[in-house]
Amino acid sequence: MKIVFLFYDGMTALDAIGPHEILCRIPGATVSRVARHAGPIQTDSQLILMADRSLTEVENADILLVPGAGNATTLSEYPEILDWLHSVHATTTWTTSVCTGSLILGAAGILSGLHATTHWSAFDRLTKWKAKPTKGRVIEDGKVITAAGVSAGIDMALILASKIAGEKFAQAIQLGIEYDPDPPFDVGSPDKADPAIREALQARMAAKFESIN
Amino acid sequence: MKIVFLFYDGMTALDAIGPHEILCRIPGATVSRVARHAGPIQTDSQLILMADRSLTEVENADILLVPGAGNATTLSEYPEILDWLHSVHATTTWTTSVCTGSLILGAAGILSGLHATTHWSAFDRLTKWKAKPTKGRVIEDGKVITAAGVSAGIDMALILASKIAGEKFAQAIQLGIEYDPDPPFDVGSPDKADPAIREALQARMAAKFESIN
Repeated sequence: MKIVFLFYDGMTALDAIGPHEILCRIPGATVSRVARHAGPIQTDSQLILMADRSLTEVENADILLVPGAGNATTLSEYPEILDWLHSVHATTTWTTSVCTGSLILGAAGILSGLHATTHWSAFDRLTKWKAKPTKGRVIEDGKVITAAGVSAGIDMALILASKIAGEKFAQAIQLGIEYDPDPPFDVGSPDKADPAIREALQARMAAKFESIN
Repeated sequence: MKIVFLFYDGMTALDAIGPHEILCRIPGATVSRVARHAGPIQTDSQLILMADRSLTEVENADILLVPGAGNATTLSEYPEILDWLHSVHATTTWTTSVCTGSLILGAAGILSGLHATTHWSAFDRLTKWKAKPTKGRVIEDGKVITAAGVSAGIDMALILASKIAGEKFAQAIQLGIEYDPDPPFDVGSPDKADPAIREALQARMAAKFESIN
């Protein structure tokens, strides 16, 4: 089971690290973190993560995961990443994304005609890539699974672990990371949030995403 | 607002990155990732994170956060980390931990007489450091806040963001990371899990934690 995470400058760390913490616990999994060039990757929160492989070293994957970015301008400047995604996608059992990672899958031509989700603030932007924007925390269409914003990658990865290693094993991982969430507020989705907070955030995010989509 | 994350070889990435994704969004916060030596840190899931400061460069913090580890043997070999924690703790507004990070706070002499929690499988080990093991996802005692296993750091960081920046701001962060959790199973705490799964995991974790406590 070869699990490949795409890393790139500007990515949101938790989009990748939530699923990473779960998928690395699957027995027999080998996990790689792949970027244009192996080495340090600057996330959108100043944290630096290391990529251990470059694109040219990885030609296939059983699971491919693409994280999103708070400001995804950088990626559109690198067509070789989109070409690589398109080519690796042809080899996968599951191609997945978290948050605005789905816009990157879209730009790579992977979502055409498929139901998909993304960060709530970028929902309508999926249509540019001919995807069918679909509400839900985790949306599955054929072998493509897309998750909603940032933290939704944790739920997606547990679903994926269950498909691959079985329910009992996924449950053991969930207990291992003590995932019994208890958010202090019930405002984590746009329909539950204070409208003023939602609209301010929507405006800020719209400006950030302008250049990718 | 100076927020300091302790990084160390063997740490669990999500323990730190969950809260990091939240706390870095607090306005005016400066976040540092501090280790014995600045540079690459090998987590317990092969992922490498970069520490940007060494212990000797950081003498104080408003918020100090200590992540846990799947196998915390390494830290007990480095008394300078425990000395540093003890000394920085004297300067903090909040001293916090995620998962077995609380055992490290304990070893640094910070939990004596305090209510605290940790990963469920290590719960009783808190008594070695004269802490009062207390059930709960996030336990606050004076300025010390401890969170339960791995994913509980996300809930803790939102509570902390609310204390520091106010409820509205914490809600905006929660909506920003679309934290409206929907785990596929309701088995994330030991009392909800299948007893066979819990006992197998408990036995495996007990062996791993033996050497720190």
